[in-house]
Amino acid sequence: MSKIYNFSAGPACMPEAVLKKAADEMLDANGSGMSVMEMSHRSSSFEKILKDTKDTMRRLANIPDDYEILFIQGGGNLQFSMVPMNFNKNGADIINTGQWTKKAIKETEKLGRVHIAGDSSDKTFTYIPKITQEDLDPDTDYVYICENNTIYGTKYKELPPHEGKKLIADLSSCIFTEPLDVTKYDMIFAGAQKNLGPAGVTVVFIKKDLLDSQRNDIPSAMLDYKTYVNNDSMYNTPPTYGIYMVGLVCKWLEDEIGGLEEMEKINHKKAAILYDYLDSSKMFSNPVAVEDRSYVNIPFVTGNPDLDKKFIAQAKEAGFENLKGHRTVGGMRASIYNAMPVEGVEKLVAFMKKFEEENA
Amino acid sequence: MSKIYNFSAGPACMPEAVLKKAADEMLDANGSGMSVMEMSHRSSSFEKILKDTKDTMRRLANIPDDYEILFIQGGGNLQFSMVPMNFNKNGADIINTGQWTKKAIKETEKLGRVHIAGDSSDKTFTYIPKITQEDLDPDTDYVYICENNTIYGTKYKELPPHEGKKLIADLSSCIFTEPLDVTKYDMIFAGAQKNLGPAGVTVVFIKKDLLDSQRNDIPSAMLDYKTYVNNDSMYNTPPTYGIYMVGLVCKWLEDEIGGLEEMEKINHKKAAILYDYLDSSKMFSNPVAVEDRSYVNIPFVTGNPDLDKKFIAQAKEAGFENLKGHRTVGGMRASIYNAMPVEGVEKLVAFMKKFEEENA
Repeated sequence: MSKIYNFSAGPACMPEAVLKKAADEMLDANGSGMSVMEMSHRSSSFEKILKDTKDTMRRLANIPDDYEILFIQGGGNLQFSMVPMNFNKNGADIINTGQWTKKAIKETEKLGRVHIAGDSSDKTFTYIPKITQEDLDPDTDYVYICENNTIYGTKYKELPPHEGKKLIADLSSCIFTEPLDVTKYDMIFAGAQKNLGPAGVTVVFIKKDLLDSQRNDIPSAMLDYKTYVNNDSMYNTPPTYGIYMVGLVCKWLEDEIGGLEEMEKINHKKAAILYDYLDSSKMFSNPVAVEDRSYVNIPFVTGNPDLDKKFIAQAKEAGFENLKGHRTVGGMRASIYNAMPVEGVEKLVAFMKKFEEENA
Repeated sequence: MSKIYNFSAGPACMPEAVLKKAADEMLDANGSGMSVMEMSHRSSSFEKILKDTKDTMRRLANIPDDYEILFIQGGGNLQFSMVPMNFNKNGADIINTGQWTKKAIKETEKLGRVHIAGDSSDKTFTYIPKITQEDLDPDTDYVYICENNTIYGTKYKELPPHEGKKLIADLSSCIFTEPLDVTKYDMIFAGAQKNLGPAGVTVVFIKKDLLDSQRNDIPSAMLDYKTYVNNDSMYNTPPTYGIYMVGLVCKWLEDEIGGLEEMEKINHKKAAILYDYLDSSKMFSNPVAVEDRSYVNIPFVTGNPDLDKKFIAQAKEAGFENLKGHRTVGGMRASIYNAMPVEGVEKLVAFMKKFEEENA
């Protein structure tokens, strides 16, 4: 094979060093004589993997002891339901910033009251609504946001006000792409498949005292955060191999990258390379309000759907995979998560420049 | 490392050939230039993996077109809730055969009515209750069973009567260990981590017309079987790597083993080797009613907890891992699923004979 660069929005590219280690350990992990996939989740070998993964996460983001780290299945989509099942007693303030909050709103409405505290649908979600405390409903329990919007390429640079309310955030596409102060949130969730590992693991950071305000009609033990807290995410068999991979990715962040501050520098550098070109190009442009631009999901268009199509096809041939925009918006999108090397973005921009010249 | 044999009840040993292929393909699957973990679930590469996995399953068990094959997250435990959420309108007849049906009963009671149609708790679940149609509640929607009971080592050799009702079965520990006639059931589910692949994938075979009798108060799209049917299990990101591994295991069953009839022969042979010894031993015994014995989970005891402990420790030292019985019952248990070679059982029995002689 020739070298390819994978700009998929998720599942997404993973660090080569991590994949190599996974391949090396596939038949014999840590001298156990077995694959991690074959380990009983109740074995000391797997318990060590689980503990090491959590410890590495705590070190990376300085997660204090009053926050629990949970591993749940079902992706962000199941969290869209679990959050209101557990915490929507009087209502939720949700800020609508695109596809993922729309789904969260739809699921929340099945289970409780929703108040839309902000909405950027008027400009095709190309900006983050700047709300004030007065935009919130006085009776709701929590404010809910999607911090980085994978499809539209927007990101909160400041968290919304939420005085007297809990703050719950979907960080699926930006978790560990930059330093994270979990104490600003009451709960964070993130599907692993963008920055942390393979699909099938959802990471939750939850402040323990949030569990004091649970609903009393949660329909299943598997949908109750307390079940995961009380059983160290092992009430039933967790996605053991996925957790192991998340652990390897976090060790890579810590040892190879040097932590989240260093990761942020690299991510800002990659984003600047692409945005600088987009802002100077006469062919390509990014539609997002400059102050709300995502560092990891960068949509762009030529304004001509036929030319977009030609670009995507030629890019694929040149080894730049998955640049097609989400089916709901079209155009192009480069997802440049943690595992995308700077070189990948530089080569993409070089390719775009050449394409622009040839098709001017 | 020296050779070990892993008798874990799940996650459990996997075919070595499958793990080797997974290791080989970790950085470049099918010439794609990427790992399966890195593939967008909407890419043609992953769509082919999903389709191939389902096609292989259909061939293995002759699954007809009026049954859908679904991949869900959350394990058997989430199914304990999803089944009543979707189908318990007037009640469920549940046959209680141990830990897993007890959990199913508990979750079902949160969501609807339960009638216990049979119960073997009177003899510590060492047999399968033989119920008749008269034992069923006339008003229930379905009969629910756990076909092979991992902890207690029992297995249904004949399905219970269920005239006028649907039949829903948990096959987590026996799926594809023998030929399977799905047309005898309305729905089957199975966590993958015993016979099909890694933890984190639940396989569901569901008769399409069962969806005509769904409840209308399902609280979440992610908990509604129709969501999976209507989106080919891709409403959200499925556990892509787990599905790929399930596909590799099923191909191994088809190509290396030669199908489910051949797999059954091997499993019966392995079980006979262990049961024959247990029935002739003066030290070890299996407590299960002979006609209800599982072919894949075989508990045994010496009758002396200290001797059990000594056996487990010495066995571990000799390379026989995870022989400790489930924490709720104690003693020993050998789980000898599809991937356990005949040789592993022969060597275990040789070790047990030696232990018996030395400790007579």
